Amino acid sequence: MRYLITFSYDGSNFFGYQKQLHKRTIQNEIEKALFLINGNKNVSIHASGRTDALVHALNQKAHFDLNKELPCLNIKNALNSLLPKDIYIKNVEQVNNNFHARFDVKYKEYKYIINTGLYNPIERNYVYQYNKNLDIDNMKKGIELLIGTHNFKSFCKTNNEQLDYIRTIIKANIEIEDDKIILTFKGNGFLRYMIRNMVGTLIKIGENKINYKEINNILKKENRIYAFKTANAEGLYLNDVFYKE
Amino acid sequence: MRYLITFSYDGSNFFGYQKQLHKRTIQNEIEKALFLINGNKNVSIHASGRTDALVHALNQKAHFDLNKELPCLNIKNALNSLLPKDIYIKNVEQVNNNFHARFDVKYKEYKYIINTGLYNPIERNYVYQYNKNLDIDNMKKGIELLIGTHNFKSFCKTNNEQLDYIRTIIKANIEIEDDKIILTFKGNGFLRYMIRNMVGTLIKIGENKINYKEINNILKKENRIYAFKTANAEGLYLNDVFYKE
Repeated sequence: MRYLITFSYDGSNFFGYQKQLHKRTIQNEIEKALFLINGNKNVSIHASGRTDALVHALNQKAHFDLNKELPCLNIKNALNSLLPKDIYIKNVEQVNNNFHARFDVKYKEYKYIINTGLYNPIERNYVYQYNKNLDIDNMKKGIELLIGTHNFKSFCKTNNEQLDYIRTIIKANIEIEDDKIILTFKGNGFLRYMIRNMVGTLIKIGENKINYKEINNILKKENRIYAFKTANAEGLYLNDVFYKE
Repeated sequence: MRYLITFSYDGSNFFGYQKQLHKRTIQNEIEKALFLINGNKNVSIHASGRTDALVHALNQKAHFDLNKELPCLNIKNALNSLLPKDIYIKNVEQVNNNFHARFDVKYKEYKYIINTGLYNPIERNYVYQYNKNLDIDNMKKGIELLIGTHNFKSFCKTNNEQLDYIRTIIKANIEIEDDKIILTFKGNGFLRYMIRNMVGTLIKIGENKINYKEINNILKKENRIYAFKTANAEGLYLNDVFYKE
């Protein structure tokens, strides 16, 4: 029986999503809980993708198989009672046995929050604190140039050997809420560190240190050294995952 | 030289504000930092009042004396570089030697946040999660009855022997922001657990388990057993402190 779960987590106290030996990760915690639910038999979960250490998720998705059929609400309640308070299962649904939470992804949406207001200790793990003014108009012009199908190698983690650096971004925009700059990116997939590297470059544009049109040149170079500093992990949220019909 | 500081903190990882031996408290951390700034001489700080474990502050105030005069901005920067990330000094100003951060308080303002929306792990330390509907209209009628000068013994921590349980609340209201109920209380002073006990009783009113007019009877009883469950600490914020001219 295959199940799809939708879950949120506070990434602050995890070494990222992916299973690691002797480290507190989100996958470890969920698989430990499922082991108990599945009658002390191991369960592997397959998420839409990993998130790095300190990165949060509002609607991460993963599938897994159980030996026997259980009501979805029972699985949800059992998981939430077994899991630590920084992971929350929002929904459990049964899916076809050929559904795959990673391979069937159509789009993923991330948000990145920059706080340009006063440092607030309560938000320290949930925003990127930035104490200077940023030119939002130029950042908005820059982010639009990222929309479309491009080779994103310049924005990918160095030494992250991939077969394919081509990705399509269908939505990228900037909204302002009080002192917060909220960047949204929706696309068919994102390379490792890609969003944080795009944000780092957009901050350089906001500082007026480079022209927004530089985005086009950086994309063309297909080399990480042309993009700028990776923005901090704590401002990043996996906001949603969309599947093919 | 006497200085007044305004500071914010995330109470989640502290055993409250007040100094305790071998425990992580806000006062301990600030006094440790001031010891270094004051040439390795102990400095005692005097806050507007304590806050309990897990309670947050957006604008707590405290005064202290240093052996020598230092520019306020230098003290602020030195403190922020020495303090952990969950305390932030927002302002430092010089004050008269007869100013006292506790005795000269005119009003203090607290906020209490209840989340009636879906549990969000990112907010778990910053709101009181309440998964049922509350009758806001009745809560609003109830909170108004707390305004004025009353004996608040019924809302005070049991066994907290005081000489005087009379306090004046000059403002008490409820605002709704999306799924959050935000209660604000401003008064000339608050007894231990007073706000959390008032909130606990207002929740009972919101559940329609008691009539809002019960507030008057509970106040008259002057006995803690007539009020209801103390609301959780994590929803409480010391929002501001106001001094006499």
